[in-house]
Amino acid sequence: MIKVGIYGGSGYTGQELMRLLLGHPDVQVVVTTSRRFAGVPVADVYPHFAGLTDLVFTDERPEKVAEMADLIFLALPHGVSMEAVPGFVQSGKKIIDLSADFRLRDQAAYEQWYGVHKAPGMLREAVYGLPELYRDRIRKTHLVANPGCYPTSIILGLAPLLRSRWIDAASVIADSKSGVSGAGRDPQIDSLFCEVDGGFKAYKVGRHRHTPEIEQELSALAGQEMKISFTPHLLPVKRGILSTIYGRLNSDVTAEEATALYQSFYRDEPFVRIRRSGQFPNLSSVVGSNYCDIGVTVDKRTGRIIIVSVIDNLIKGASGQAIQNMNLLCGLKETTGLPGIALFP
Amino acid sequence: MIKVGIYGGSGYTGQELMRLLLGHPDVQVVVTTSRRFAGVPVADVYPHFAGLTDLVFTDERPEKVAEMADLIFLALPHGVSMEAVPGFVQSGKKIIDLSADFRLRDQAAYEQWYGVHKAPGMLREAVYGLPELYRDRIRKTHLVANPGCYPTSIILGLAPLLRSRWIDAASVIADSKSGVSGAGRDPQIDSLFCEVDGGFKAYKVGRHRHTPEIEQELSALAGQEMKISFTPHLLPVKRGILSTIYGRLNSDVTAEEATALYQSFYRDEPFVRIRRSGQFPNLSSVVGSNYCDIGVTVDKRTGRIIIVSVIDNLIKGASGQAIQNMNLLCGLKETTGLPGIALFP
Amino acid sequence: MIKVGIYGGSGYTGQELMRLLLGHPDVQVVVTTSRRFAGVPVADVYPHFAGLTDLVFTDERPEKVAEMADLIFLALPHGVSMEAVPGFVQSGKKIIDLSADFRLRDQAAYEQWYGVHKAPGMLREAVYGLPELYRDRIRKTHLVANPGCYPTSIILGLAPLLRSRWIDAASVIADSKSGVSGAGRDPQIDSLFCEVDGGFKAYKVGRHRHTPEIEQELSALAGQEMKISFTPHLLPVKRGILSTIYGRLNSDVTAEEATALYQSFYRDEPFVRIRRSGQFPNLSSVVGSNYCDIGVTVDKRTGRIIIVSVIDNLIKGASGQAIQNMNLLCGLKETTGLPGIALFP
Amino acid sequence: MIKVGIYGGSGYTGQELMRLLLGHPDVQVVVTTSRRFAGVPVADVYPHFAGLTDLVFTDERPEKVAEMADLIFLALPHGVSMEAVPGFVQSGKKIIDLSADFRLRDQAAYEQWYGVHKAPGMLREAVYGLPELYRDRIRKTHLVANPGCYPTSIILGLAPLLRSRWIDAASVIADSKSGVSGAGRDPQIDSLFCEVDGGFKAYKVGRHRHTPEIEQELSALAGQEMKISFTPHLLPVKRGILSTIYGRLNSDVTAEEATALYQSFYRDEPFVRIRRSGQFPNLSSVVGSNYCDIGVTVDKRTGRIIIVSVIDNLIKGASGQAIQNMNLLCGLKETTGLPGIALFP
Repeated sequence: MIKVGIYGGSGYTGQELMRLLLGHPDVQVVVTTSRRFAGVPVADVYPHFAGLTDLVFTDERPEKVAEMADLIFLALPHGVSMEAVPGFVQSGKKIIDLSADFRLRDQAAYEQWYGVHKAPGMLREAVYGLPELYRDRIRKTHLVANPGCYPTSIILGLAPLLRSRWIDAASVIADSKSGVSGAGRDPQIDSLFCEVDGGFKAYKVGRHRHTPEIEQELSALAGQEMKISFTPHLLPVKRGILSTIYGRLNSDVTAEEATALYQSFYRDEPFVRIRRSGQFPNLSSVVGSNYCDIGVTVDKRTGRIIIVSVIDNLIKGASGQAIQNMNLLCGLKETTGLPGIALFP
Repeated sequence: MIKVGIYGGSGYTGQELMRLLLGHPDVQVVVTTSRRFAGVPVADVYPHFAGLTDLVFTDERPEKVAEMADLIFLALPHGVSMEAVPGFVQSGKKIIDLSADFRLRDQAAYEQWYGVHKAPGMLREAVYGLPELYRDRIRKTHLVANPGCYPTSIILGLAPLLRSRWIDAASVIADSKSGVSGAGRDPQIDSLFCEVDGGFKAYKVGRHRHTPEIEQELSALAGQEMKISFTPHLLPVKRGILSTIYGRLNSDVTAEEATALYQSFYRDEPFVRIRRSGQFPNLSSVVGSNYCDIGVTVDKRTGRIIIVSVIDNLIKGASGQAIQNMNLLCGLKETTGLPGIALFP
Repeated sequence: MIKVGIYGGSGYTGQELMRLLLGHPDVQVVVTTSRRFAGVPVADVYPHFAGLTDLVFTDERPEKVAEMADLIFLALPHGVSMEAVPGFVQSGKKIIDLSADFRLRDQAAYEQWYGVHKAPGMLREAVYGLPELYRDRIRKTHLVANPGCYPTSIILGLAPLLRSRWIDAASVIADSKSGVSGAGRDPQIDSLFCEVDGGFKAYKVGRHRHTPEIEQELSALAGQEMKISFTPHLLPVKRGILSTIYGRLNSDVTAEEATALYQSFYRDEPFVRIRRSGQFPNLSSVVGSNYCDIGVTVDKRTGRIIIVSVIDNLIKGASGQAIQNMNLLCGLKETTGLPGIALFP
Repeated sequence: MIKVGIYGGSGYTGQELMRLLLGHPDVQVVVTTSRRFAGVPVADVYPHFAGLTDLVFTDERPEKVAEMADLIFLALPHGVSMEAVPGFVQSGKKIIDLSADFRLRDQAAYEQWYGVHKAPGMLREAVYGLPELYRDRIRKTHLVANPGCYPTSIILGLAPLLRSRWIDAASVIADSKSGVSGAGRDPQIDSLFCEVDGGFKAYKVGRHRHTPEIEQELSALAGQEMKISFTPHLLPVKRGILSTIYGRLNSDVTAEEATALYQSFYRDEPFVRIRRSGQFPNLSSVVGSNYCDIGVTVDKRTGRIIIVSVIDNLIKGASGQAIQNMNLLCGLKETTGLPGIALFP
């Protein structure tokens, strides 16, 4: 049994880690921390855990958490995580950081979008935890920077196309729509039921902090620097991200050829499914699962390719992917403990 | 591996059986039928199954299905099921019927609420599949009448109280609220998103067909004939039933004593959880799981006890309970393959 | 033009007053206050007002507001309102208080449920603002205590029955379900989209503060002291309250007779509609309007009458009713400026 | 009083016409037709109209309807409308057709996307009913082709930009998201609550029939033939369309300049509101109103302009715009009877 700790466990990604880890056969959660709920049983904060765990949120210092666990997930806000990670790394334990703090390899890019970085020396040490692109490096590292939710949906949606050089790198637009859980559990007016239900909006247009993370990985795939237009929207659903991605084709390609490219690229991936040519996935086909489903078509009239990718933002977009990374880090079967089927309806 | 068939597999309870059975370690689904979708792959009708099953809906006759499978689930409308069940029973296979057709032991009661019964001789043969009340009989039978969703929530909510004779049997009111999946997948105006979202209504007030089923079981528990007021409502959620149940206490009892009664009654039950005295469950704590969560309080001002019980109508209220019954029928561990944790948020 | 002020205008009831008053032909809103948003244009806090008002939230003292306006609505939390009301009353202006502070005529009852009252001398001065019961007294007063949302739905649902003495006063149970806007706009975890959507729960069972208000008015109607069981629930909708009300009939009455009683009682009421016997209203038939819709049936099997009443909690349950009261206070036509048709779908 | 008929009145656009016309001071609805509900009172099909109209759906022939009314709205499916319109036109009455049948001036374009046209001679007779572009022509015509919902949001979102020639006409992408009422009230699986709630999907990618209508009007604005990428999505909300529109700027323009262009273009429009530079509208700011709200920004990094426009698909996208057109046709004040404020929350 691998002993696992969750540092910052009371938010939605923390609870999702707990939910998935309680069903994982090779793992035992030994500690979960929360300042806000220190001393409160996890099952009081999240009653769906009643009868399933006796854990109580603690406010342990990082060193103590590192003593108790073999592997630690950090589910903290960016800026806070980079203060805790160096200590954990020094403890010699395996670390999976779900914040944005170690995803960018370029310190300048980080500081342009987020502010001063307090542990810049570790930026190159961390491995970007997208198994579909970095599986081998993840297996060998001790520090995984778990990808953002929007980036996961967009990078997986574009990887085959960029590797193949089929599209004009300057033409990419990603129009993304996310459920509300992406905003976390902190009470704020914009996340209230009455503000969200029946509504829909774009936000942080042209200035969302996931932009440099997306561009870093797309540039690596394309072999050239890329800048994209990325527009996030807030969907009135709890979970899920759907990204509609547009690119101008460099040459005449059919929808069937494009789909075949994707099917070939992801042939051996356990958590990526490609829809038949011209068919598109619904968010509800992946919510509750670790899948990324992708549909592709070509609009001959305009010479554009259009890709739609969907994930559950809390699973493949956060905690599920973190466990996929844990499985790789610990030499377990990559799919262990990861839910295979969406909850539908 | 137990070979399992689903007869009438394209509705929501049919898909839920498939969803749960695909994750069950001791079972293989060998056939699923649908008139409407005969010839169509299951994963085309329900794309969340993409990559998880190659099954194609067939329109096989019952005899053929019985040949292929060791155990058959029937997920048909009432009235239709009673035409198919006798043939299945004669085939010697184990049968779990999810319709209402074999739940009432009294033919007259059935015919008063539903119409003519075509296989009345089997009414006494079937065992009412509520494991918390009939576990031993379920283990030994070959024909389980799987309980209705409303009845499951109400019977489990009242069982300890009626057995203990703490309340006036004539005083019981069950005010129940159900998600829309209970209405099935047949397209009808009343189930459209635009008719349901943002709305809420009572329906079939005083005349819902689950009434005699509820009263049959409550009467057995109370040891006297019971009549209750039962009011179903349609909630703008996909899954879940919450029943608020009222009864007049025969004597002075505290909330703590009432809660202790429930905790004692359900002490060894794997799928019933009792909240602390005065605390009440949210639907969202059980949606996606096979749990029934119950909260109890006493209103001293009025001398009433108030019970709130919640289930996922498609799981503990239908397909999950059916699999719980299958596990009992087949000598498996009762909890095998049944989801333990709700999907929250 | 009547000059109107809103004291505490940035919550949902405050914005709803603004929304309705902007469309009222005889009224001009001259001031609206908010501590939190002082200095911010109303249309920045609520962008649906863009282009419709230039008002800016101010933090004016009550005396200043009283100088500016002929009539003041107070949309403050209980406990806060009773500190402001005496000053407003002394200013000689007309006052409509939307808080609970002046609804109870009995100081002891207030203090048992809410805490110490700071202006007890005014409790008997205020008129309970339910026009269907107190129209004449409202016309003549200067201080209206606007009813609570749950009480409005329950009192209107029971008034004909209690006046007629048709039911056992000790048998009344009100099972009520409210939309989330009733919890206000203050950010709190329990009102977040992710906590509410797809969920449903009972809360404050047997101890909600609207209980004494409901019992005060029911007792007056019945001519005897009444105690009821009142269970509020939180619906995953933005607006609306549906109350399902149960009572034991004293004698043999048909559904048609009961319905006729209601139709007769409310014959001249502009904002109460009675459904045909055995038909029940959906929340969505009143959301966006000032209507209270009521359906009635009799369950002969149990001797109970069942009433379902629906209102929009922000309109007939708060701001719409306040404007109805304003129209009465100011000698205007009672229906002026009040929306007649629900927004459906 | 203008006598108005609704031909095809039982769908959502038909009921929305009724809802708005009942509140219109200069109009009386004298007849509304429905095959499905012939003989049924309107208030039985739509109970929110209880007490507000005595009209009964009829199955009158067009000639009879034309006799009774001065102006007829047709709210029929495309293909059906073109069979009825010629007769109505011959009757000499004013006609507002809400279908797609007379929106395209080019018969070939119609037949490519929709199939054979049965009244091609009338295509050039009809005026496209977007008042912001064709106000003077609408005033003088007798046959208005009321615009589609997606086209309204996209054309209004692009008009200032195309007239000014600021963007590359080949670069336009419109990523649109619509509420479910756009799919109408016919019961179909894809519109069921359980299929829609919690989900989100793109549909008819690159092949939605509104494409030629959008391109016709954009081409007219740009003074050159335009082809755009248009991707519709299905939002889990009842009402509203939000279009996110991308274009490549021909020259260096700031967000402030772009916003000023829009404010100037729509300065005198009663139903278009421009947000401050860099601010974007939420669907919920217009749902229930006839407004189109627009926000604009410039992404300097990519040289793109991004526009977000929102409308209520049933009001500005259908029935509200039809009434705006009726007001113009009949010489009434353009805003008469049109709701000014969204229902929020």
